[in-house]
This record gives sequence, C-alpha cells and structure tokens, in this order.
Amino acid sequence: MRRPGATVRYDVVEVTGGQAHRHEDRVATEEPLELRLTWPGSPPQPLAVTMRTPGHDFELAAGFVLSEGLVVNPAGVHGIAYCTEEQLAPEQVYNTVTVTLDAPPPRPLPARFGAVAAACGICGKDSLDAISDFGGRPVSSELQVQPGVLSALPALLRRSQPVFARTGGLHAAGLFDAVGELVVAREDVGRHNAVDKVLGAAALAGTDTTAALLCTSGRAGFEIVQKAVMASIPVVVAVGAPSSLAVACAREYAVTLVGFTREHRFVVYAAPQRVRGV
Amino acid sequence: MRRPGATVRYDVVEVTGGQAHRHEDRVATEEPLELRLTWPGSPPQPLAVTMRTPGHDFELAAGFVLSEGLVVNPAGVHGIAYCTEEQLAPEQVYNTVTVTLDAPPPRPLPARFGAVAAACGICGKDSLDAISDFGGRPVSSELQVQPGVLSALPALLRRSQPVFARTGGLHAAGLFDAVGELVVAREDVGRHNAVDKVLGAAALAGTDTTAALLCTSGRAGFEIVQKAVMASIPVVVAVGAPSSLAVACAREYAVTLVGFTREHRFVVYAAPQRVRGV
Repeated sequence: MRRPGATVRYDVVEVTGGQAHRHEDRVATEEPLELRLTWPGSPPQPLAVTMRTPGHDFELAAGFVLSEGLVVNPAGVHGIAYCTEEQLAPEQVYNTVTVTLDAPPPRPLPARFGAVAAACGICGKDSLDAISDFGGRPVSSELQVQPGVLSALPALLRRSQPVFARTGGLHAAGLFDAVGELVVAREDVGRHNAVDKVLGAAALAGTDTTAALLCTSGRAGFEIVQKAVMASIPVVVAVGAPSSLAVACAREYAVTLVGFTREHRFVVYAAPQRVRGV
Repeated sequence: MRRPGATVRYDVVEVTGGQAHRHEDRVATEEPLELRLTWPGSPPQPLAVTMRTPGHDFELAAGFVLSEGLVVNPAGVHGIAYCTEEQLAPEQVYNTVTVTLDAPPPRPLPARFGAVAAACGICGKDSLDAISDFGGRPVSSELQVQPGVLSALPALLRRSQPVFARTGGLHAAGLFDAVGELVVAREDVGRHNAVDKVLGAAALAGTDTTAALLCTSGRAGFEIVQKAVMASIPVVVAVGAPSSLAVACAREYAVTLVGFTREHRFVVYAAPQRVRGV
C-alpha cells in the first residue's frame, strides 16, 4: 500500500510576459484526515475531519487530542493507529487515525472540525463527490479572459482592503467581472469567511456570478474552489499556491484555477481554455 | 447596543534594533459567529460556529448556506437576522445569525465547523473560558528570552521547510528552545495542523515544552494561542499579525505573544516581561 506523499505533480501552464509554456509543477498535498477516539469500554468515536498534508499523522492526532483537552497528558495516550478495517482502498487506509486513551476523556467530545464519515475510509475523492451530492455541477461557462486581466487582480484587490491597511492582518476575497472591474470585496481573519461574504453579497444583491472572477489574497485550498463551484464561478485567481485537492476539484468541476499571480506572471492549474492565448 | 468593530486597539511594545517603545496598535477583530438555520415547521437548528471578523455577517451567512448546498438559490433565503432572544449582553447579540429558509434544506445539516453553543449568545469571552474548562491554565514560566533570539526564529523556521521549497504552498510551525535552537518543525496546508504536528511530536517524544518557543509561519489566530496554552508554552512568535482574540487569549493565559517578526523588529502584544530589556 502506498502512502500519500507531501506533494503531487501536475502539468500546468505558466504565463510569463504574455508567453505561455507548459511544464510540470509540484503542489502541496491536501487530503482529509479523520480522527477517531476510543478508550476502554468505548467503540471508536468520530472526533474530527481535518484537511491536512499527509505525513506525521500520528503527531497531528496526538497534538489535537492534547490541544482539545481530551487527555490530560501524553502518558494517557495508549496508542495511535491507522484504520485497521479490511477491504479499504490504499488511499483510504492512511486517512483515518484512531487514538486510544487509557481512560475516558475528562470532557465531552466536541461536535466540531469537519464533516464526519459514517465508515472508515474518507479520502479526497469523497470530498470531490460531496460537492456533487450538494448540488454542485461542472461550470459550463465559455468565458474568455485576457491574461492581463488575471495578473492585475491581486493589486486591485489589495486596494480594497481598508482593514488590512490598518492591521496587516486580514485575508481578502474579491469578485470581479470578466474585464477585471471590481464588483465586491470583503476582508476577514478567515480566508473562507472572506469568500463567503463576497458570495453572499453577490447572492443578496442578485448579481450573476456565472461569468465572474473570484480572487483570493492567499492560497487556494479545496474549500475555496468548492465555494466557487457552488456559485458557478468559472475562474478562481489566488495570490498564493493551490493545494492538490484544490487542483483536483477545479479539474473535475471545470473551474479555471490560477495561482502565484503576479503583475507579469501566473500559473494555470486547471481549465486553461478560458485564458486567451493559452 | 454597540456592534463589534473590525479592529481593536491594544497597547503594545515594539522592539526595533534592540530599542523598545510602547505605542497603540490596531489588530483585526476575531470573534465567534454562530450560524443557525430554520425553515417552516422547524425551530432554529445549530449549523456552525466560525471565527470571523465582525461586519457583513448576513452576507457571510448567505454565502455559507449557499456554498454548503443548504439552499438551492438565493431566492430560497426568506430572511437573515441577528439573535432576538432577550437578556443578551451586547457582545452576544451580534454573534448569532439565524437564516430562515422558505423550505427544508435539500440535504441533512452538516455536523461541522466548530463547537455549537446550547444557547443564543456565544462571544469571545466564552472561547477564552472554554480553554479553562478544558484544563488550560495561565502559563507560569519565568523564562527570559533575548530579543535577538525571537527575531531570528522565522528565518530558522524557513530553513526547515523542505516541502515549501518545492511548492511554495505550506504553512510551518516550529518548536525552539529558549536560546533559539530548533527542536522540531513541521509543515501543513493548515496552520493549525502544523502546530498540532509540532506539539504532538514533542508530546510523543516526551519533550518538555514549558520553556519552549513556538513559531508559526503565518498569522496568529485564537486557535494557535489556545494550543500553546494547553501545552504550557510560554512564548508564541508569529511572522504575521495576531488577531484580537489571540491577543486577549495570550493576555488572559499569560502567553508572550510576538507578531510581525522580522530580522531587526518585532511587536509584543502580550506578556512582554519574558522579553529581556523590555
């Protein structure tokens, strides 16, 4: 059985100074990890699902239960193991970790941190399928965007960040039209909240998002692309790097995903056909 | 009733080139927002708690229910309102938003996104009190750290980021001893996961963290400081900005919180007595 690695390779299109060239790029792996907790007399209880980069999963599990006060000290952790149920696909085995305590936890289990699967064996594919279950469909827009419009978005977004200017401490998201005019921008300590505020503002105002560009000030994880799919937004532009699951999601749901966006350079990770000249 | 603002002012100590001076600084507000969902025939159901910057809360709520597929289109949102229960403190009223749908949601409610309070009226104070309920205590360490040790940590952490070097797309956390020697560093797409991995690694190795420095590659939110408190770590160093609730948490639990850490400059937001010469 192959353990998932810390990076995934994808063929991408890099656009520099108007010139497109194809090459292979590595992105950080993002996969769901389900944590379960058990103790003498109790079957494993679902505890949390977190989107993480595979590797050091037992440490993550130990750190989580200690941080959440579910065990008073490390000596109370009897064992940590990957899922031992049979008939699991390789990519599922290493996405479920069970922590066994010596005694019941001193507090009730939190109802928190991500959707919890009924059976052992969550994986990135399940996260992609869930979007479809929730009504998300591949984005069919035939929008064409000029490269210069994409590379200008981060600077335009930054100009709409009054709170960042005062604190240096906020994420931002902005919705732009196809020629790069700002429709609405919002800030938040949470990147996903900034995106929800922008999408909610558009929805409440009756703004059509099916030919819009969504720009996020940081990195693009799975959740950001998921939100774009649900709003039928054809193009997501990130200032930073995408994760592997963001790329997989964008490819499956036909969202054009652009990362490392600078004034004269960006990298297209999915659906490059919407970028003119690529 | 006063609505919470987007920023909070704190007295801080800025250290530049070895010189300390006090001034007032603004940080981005971080407060819990509880989202509830109701529809004809159903009492309000707890949906999620997210740590957000106050402002545009109804947009956030609308974007969230649409992104999660809990309503098929914006027209299905009948109304959005703050908590209308009586006898709430001002800071509680604006931290609970109820979305009313025209019809039941097309999918089961997700068991996800944060602990859910039993009553209307969660606020930042509750989040601070929860740490104590989970066994967290003010950090009593009398550690003294040289300013030069603190300002060197981000560069040392960056050198321990092999996956970032390949992908440009990961957060990192590192545990250092009191003179700035690296104990363990970990990377992850999630900042909180990187911290859990580091704390879990220390716990599983039996490493004493009560005189350790925790460095995070990004911003410092509430959750990062919470994890430090639970591990009795006396000093948290962030490359970026802290949030208001991170500062409040660090002050209540006596964690030295350092932000905007550069080679010759940093800002101390809480417990400056552990920084020598300040």
